[in-house]
Amino acid sequence: MTTHEIPGPPFRLWSTEHEPVLTVSDGDVVEFTVQDASGGVYDDAQTGANPPALDFDRVYPLAGPVVVEGAESGDVVSLEPLEFTTGDWAWTASIPGLGLLPDDFDDAYLYRWDIQNQSSVAFHDVATIPLRPFLGVMAVTPDVAEPTPVMPPGYFGGNMDCRDLVVGSTLYLPVQLPGARLAFGDPHGAQGDGEVCVSAMELGSMQGAVRVRLHKDRVIPGPQFETTGPLRAGIEDAGHHATMGVAPDLMKAAQDAVRAMIDLLGREYRLEPRDAYLLCSVVVDLKISEVVDAPNWVVTAYLPKSVMNRR
Amino acid sequence: MTTHEIPGPPFRLWSTEHEPVLTVSDGDVVEFTVQDASGGVYDDAQTGANPPALDFDRVYPLAGPVVVEGAESGDVVSLEPLEFTTGDWAWTASIPGLGLLPDDFDDAYLYRWDIQNQSSVAFHDVATIPLRPFLGVMAVTPDVAEPTPVMPPGYFGGNMDCRDLVVGSTLYLPVQLPGARLAFGDPHGAQGDGEVCVSAMELGSMQGAVRVRLHKDRVIPGPQFETTGPLRAGIEDAGHHATMGVAPDLMKAAQDAVRAMIDLLGREYRLEPRDAYLLCSVVVDLKISEVVDAPNWVVTAYLPKSVMNRR
Repeated sequence: MTTHEIPGPPFRLWSTEHEPVLTVSDGDVVEFTVQDASGGVYDDAQTGANPPALDFDRVYPLAGPVVVEGAESGDVVSLEPLEFTTGDWAWTASIPGLGLLPDDFDDAYLYRWDIQNQSSVAFHDVATIPLRPFLGVMAVTPDVAEPTPVMPPGYFGGNMDCRDLVVGSTLYLPVQLPGARLAFGDPHGAQGDGEVCVSAMELGSMQGAVRVRLHKDRVIPGPQFETTGPLRAGIEDAGHHATMGVAPDLMKAAQDAVRAMIDLLGREYRLEPRDAYLLCSVVVDLKISEVVDAPNWVVTAYLPKSVMNRR
Repeated sequence: MTTHEIPGPPFRLWSTEHEPVLTVSDGDVVEFTVQDASGGVYDDAQTGANPPALDFDRVYPLAGPVVVEGAESGDVVSLEPLEFTTGDWAWTASIPGLGLLPDDFDDAYLYRWDIQNQSSVAFHDVATIPLRPFLGVMAVTPDVAEPTPVMPPGYFGGNMDCRDLVVGSTLYLPVQLPGARLAFGDPHGAQGDGEVCVSAMELGSMQGAVRVRLHKDRVIPGPQFETTGPLRAGIEDAGHHATMGVAPDLMKAAQDAVRAMIDLLGREYRLEPRDAYLLCSVVVDLKISEVVDAPNWVVTAYLPKSVMNRR
């Protein structure tokens, strides 16, 4: 096994023109340090209203591109996280115009997490969130005609923001370009399925190690992964609060489910709506309960009670 | 505690005109026997193509309506399943024009499950599905102007098809009419989040017992529930296969995630697409991984490997 450190500086737009910074072989491990998705804008921000505005010239700094020797379009690469660190601090923010409920929350508001290498961290005095670090972005470079923002994910992977891509899981991606051109970024300490306020627990920085494999005999239509055990081990023993949205549109159903959870958090835990929204983004999972009972679908939001300090 | 047996016959359309068959008080338990959602159309059907057509005059036979003494519009009733039986047999079918992938599966196809009170049941020789029975339909009667089909759920509850409403969970519903007028039906032995082929493991019949409580001090916007522990205890120890759909529409993302899972089940387990579709409907969970990275959302389909006989 050979280990390679990905050199900096980061890149910030998908492009087929970036010069690769490293070449690795099947089975090699890449190590990297990545900065938070804001590119350091929130470095000095404190909990409260009026955090600095995002700078779209700085968002999504990525480590790479890394060429996988012998990879061709149509092959599959697998990425197996071996280690993700969590560092000292993180932020979660609702940002005007973004997120699942932009009409309900039109002011910027930020919560700063004090991590200091703990295994769980406090949200005000109401909740304690266990850390399960992962990367929002793991990718092969897409075959884009011109430089393209990193925010939207695609069948090449990218900004999938899937909370289950933790150490122990293995991600499979379909290679789009010769050499695959791997990229890594957007470190998260915790996130609920949905990432509803548009940010997870965004780690200030992360050091990571990922094993890379090349599969010549697989064909996949888009990102796939395998896990090795229970998805929520240790955080559901106290059960859940669950709220439903029911609507002829899955987006509306998801919005209503989260609105009902924000209402519940206010009534039962005295959380302000903006704090409840951020808490949903880092620990509440959105599931599609049914998508066949035409014309109404059900999306359900699940909050594990174990994270709440007072039950 | 008083226990009441709900008398028959069943009713089949939401209506404010049905004569209540029983009146209960806060804390009482109701017991009932309910037939499968097809109303017995598939009683003699065997695994294979060309099962009988659904008869929409027979679908969704419901036990009730049950009046809750003192319940008024704006109150909340809770329904706490105490016992759900699974019986001898069940069916799962894809039905032309219905389900998540009607364009991919245009022929009727049925699988008949042989249960015989086992705790898990065979799907062909490829999978073994643990039974976790629940009701697809628990409801207060909606305030409808005219008799209305039971299939679409709503903020009154109804055909929510939520797999987590098992014994141990407690469902909360907002009362719509004086007396609440409770109804129960659509017995399921197992189902994945999504119920993608339009049917779960539809039990031939179920005997159930549910505790009813009336809450004068709660206000909820729609169905909510609480669980008492891990959602998938005992079925995720072997990890998961997970496939992603990435699209600017959650419905398209859900469809692509399931198509990718059907493809995976064909490649890795040699399942025919129609069998893979049915298997997805009874054990694969759909989650919204992210719904904020505009313009593309990610829906992920999760298959617990433990249900597959050959791994």
